[in-house]
Amino acid sequence: MENTDKSALERTYEANLPAFESISTLPEHGAECARCAAWLAARLRAIGMEAELLETKTKPVVYGCRKGDAGRPTVLFYGHYDVQPVDPLSFWQSHPFKAEQREGRIYARGAQDNKGQIVFFLSALQALIDQGALRCTVKVLIEGEEEAGSAGLRGALPGWNDKIKADVLMVCDSDCAAPGVPAIAMGLRGVIGLTVRLGGLKKDLHSGQHGGVVQNPALEMARLLATLHRPDGAVAVTGFYDGIAPVSDEERRLVACIPFDVEAYRAAVGVAPIGGEKGYLPRERSGFRPTIEVNGVHSGYGGPGTKTIIPAHAVAKLTARLVAGQEPQRCLDLMIEHLRSHAPAGLELEISEAEVAGPAMRCDPKSALVQRAAGVLKLIFEREPVFVWEGGSVPIVADLARIVKGNTLLVGFGLEADNVHAPNESFSLEQLKWGFLYAAMMLQELGRPCAA
Amino acid sequence: MENTDKSALERTYEANLPAFESISTLPEHGAECARCAAWLAARLRAIGMEAELLETKTKPVVYGCRKGDAGRPTVLFYGHYDVQPVDPLSFWQSHPFKAEQREGRIYARGAQDNKGQIVFFLSALQALIDQGALRCTVKVLIEGEEEAGSAGLRGALPGWNDKIKADVLMVCDSDCAAPGVPAIAMGLRGVIGLTVRLGGLKKDLHSGQHGGVVQNPALEMARLLATLHRPDGAVAVTGFYDGIAPVSDEERRLVACIPFDVEAYRAAVGVAPIGGEKGYLPRERSGFRPTIEVNGVHSGYGGPGTKTIIPAHAVAKLTARLVAGQEPQRCLDLMIEHLRSHAPAGLELEISEAEVAGPAMRCDPKSALVQRAAGVLKLIFEREPVFVWEGGSVPIVADLARIVKGNTLLVGFGLEADNVHAPNESFSLEQLKWGFLYAAMMLQELGRPCAA
Repeated sequence: MENTDKSALERTYEANLPAFESISTLPEHGAECARCAAWLAARLRAIGMEAELLETKTKPVVYGCRKGDAGRPTVLFYGHYDVQPVDPLSFWQSHPFKAEQREGRIYARGAQDNKGQIVFFLSALQALIDQGALRCTVKVLIEGEEEAGSAGLRGALPGWNDKIKADVLMVCDSDCAAPGVPAIAMGLRGVIGLTVRLGGLKKDLHSGQHGGVVQNPALEMARLLATLHRPDGAVAVTGFYDGIAPVSDEERRLVACIPFDVEAYRAAVGVAPIGGEKGYLPRERSGFRPTIEVNGVHSGYGGPGTKTIIPAHAVAKLTARLVAGQEPQRCLDLMIEHLRSHAPAGLELEISEAEVAGPAMRCDPKSALVQRAAGVLKLIFEREPVFVWEGGSVPIVADLARIVKGNTLLVGFGLEADNVHAPNESFSLEQLKWGFLYAAMMLQELGRPCAA
Repeated sequence: MENTDKSALERTYEANLPAFESISTLPEHGAECARCAAWLAARLRAIGMEAELLETKTKPVVYGCRKGDAGRPTVLFYGHYDVQPVDPLSFWQSHPFKAEQREGRIYARGAQDNKGQIVFFLSALQALIDQGALRCTVKVLIEGEEEAGSAGLRGALPGWNDKIKADVLMVCDSDCAAPGVPAIAMGLRGVIGLTVRLGGLKKDLHSGQHGGVVQNPALEMARLLATLHRPDGAVAVTGFYDGIAPVSDEERRLVACIPFDVEAYRAAVGVAPIGGEKGYLPRERSGFRPTIEVNGVHSGYGGPGTKTIIPAHAVAKLTARLVAGQEPQRCLDLMIEHLRSHAPAGLELEISEAEVAGPAMRCDPKSALVQRAAGVLKLIFEREPVFVWEGGSVPIVADLARIVKGNTLLVGFGLEADNVHAPNESFSLEQLKWGFLYAAMMLQELGRPCAA
């Protein structure tokens, strides 16, 4: 029996998209990813678009296009239909792939990230098409591997330049600053990574017989990692900061406006936000400053009690977050050069898995496009949006941003409470409706003859 | 059918002591340890001693005594009947608890460490008793937990002071410097240890959102561990070197005489012997200089590829080797104070498992006792013995050395080729005979009226 309290939007949403177990990182879910992509293509056709599945070396990409009026701009929407794994399953109150509505929220894996945000965008598109109100050309590109690195889409992109050419890129895969406080993401950091190993010993050695005779790889790894930063928290790799795009007075003013409650942060995370470089606000550090992070370090004994060994080797996993103006390959080369020149002479240093994921991306808060989005959000929320500079990286967005010459709008409607990537992911009906309004009004705004 | 090529010594040795599966660290071998102890007590009685099993909180200790002539000194012999585990069993050419003779060597777990060295000592004792030539009082103390920390014996020792009172301690649990080159161990290092944990984060954090905002426990652990040493390799903990007994010119001359082949070391270990403090020879560093070693460090991700997290915590296991004059509890307190004062303010530091295993022990190479042992070894080997300062620690020996006011003789007949603690442990018949000769002649020497 149909629940007549639910809107058509909710019914469509619950019944379909979150039901696909499209976990991109698990090979056994490949067929389910393909079924999800096929369903989305059918959905695009149902709302009046031409749609097809574009093959990549990995997961298929859903592509749809609806031609608009001549002389109006082309909008490219990017989203992803894949989701994170669901384990531990026992932590879920309801089945992650059987969407359930409780107290104004829809619970499912992908309920927000990114299926929920795709749903409101497509609903808005449908509404405009149904009412004959869509003026701009809209292209939709929904990939199936964002949670696993977007390798398929990245590899295929160079061949699709003509097909996906556009004037504006819209991405709805981020959060509001707080309930009722819209946000425009003005930047993403880039990311590079590598694995460093110090060894050379044939086996773990007796720490009595050999302590003070050989170099200790665990200790030398600590000393090597300690050279990566200066005492004030700045990265000590020579040349690492070269070329960083200057931060304008306006950006500095705006970043200081981002709500940041030190005590709330400490309560949520467990520690005070006092890492990184001295002399910058927390949101300046995550938005405008690069970092080098140790993601893990492992060497020798880790169990209870004592094992008096000198470990045969030590391994550390490193990533660096980059900001606008830093060339990723150069930064990676500089990090490797630093590690080589600071490594202890007597041990063997091995660098592996050195990889550029992607560069940083930054928008200009004063650009006409951003100002128009800010106007739309102000109309909806009756307050100015917050500009945020994300600390995270979505490398594929940086790639797509180049296609639209930087005319990128990153406006999403997630909230901290949504538990993305965690058990009991959900999305509130309230946020779904704000998202619908934004997408519809922004497409209307972009369809005006003045163009982006 | 008996193999008449084998001596009585070999037959006794093969048939009995190594057959007991006296692995102290495995609880299921407790009964076997007890049977081994009972066999040893019976053996002591068989050669003419009074013997008993002394109970401790863990494994029984075998105690034997044979009263000598009035006015002659008392010699305490210390050994251990327990052995290391045998895994991986598949690496053994013959069963580890069925002694097998091949090409002049006896193969079994404990063949050398320490059952083989006990065997030659008891054989020498038996020979002297049989011939009415034993003049000194001999006490034998054989514990069953040396490979697992000697907790039982250490706990019981204070109550046994009168029983085991002696003038000289003999221990045969070390190696010759090389085949044909006898060695007297002049020192053992002490050992202390602790576990240090840096945390406070409620969980692993996204390195993009939080990188540069919070302190990274893996990175901060590296920076903390890097403060433990100065650039020249010396320990940087304030006060750590206080009270270290000076090294005499004679000791410095003797340590320089210890054979040390840099290329052979590099070939065996895999790296050059260039760790520890600058300005000292390798054998000076392991014998006369304390160290702080990282036995293990673990934090965050260690698998293939990239996981962009800030690890919630980092754990490091540390031990320090101490030398004569360093007070272990004070050194442990200083290390803890150093870690506390250098820890990053924003993270939680936790020190656990802080423990003193035991102090260092050092003998005087010019003492009358050592000179007499050197004379005995010179007679047997027709060359001067080498004096070695061991880098390792046998904390219970340091405890026993106090009972004899430092009159300790650490002379053993193991060789590098014996594979102690490893598969295919063995002891050569040649070394068994050298050990027999040393034990017999040293007991004779100590039985002379001049006393130790």
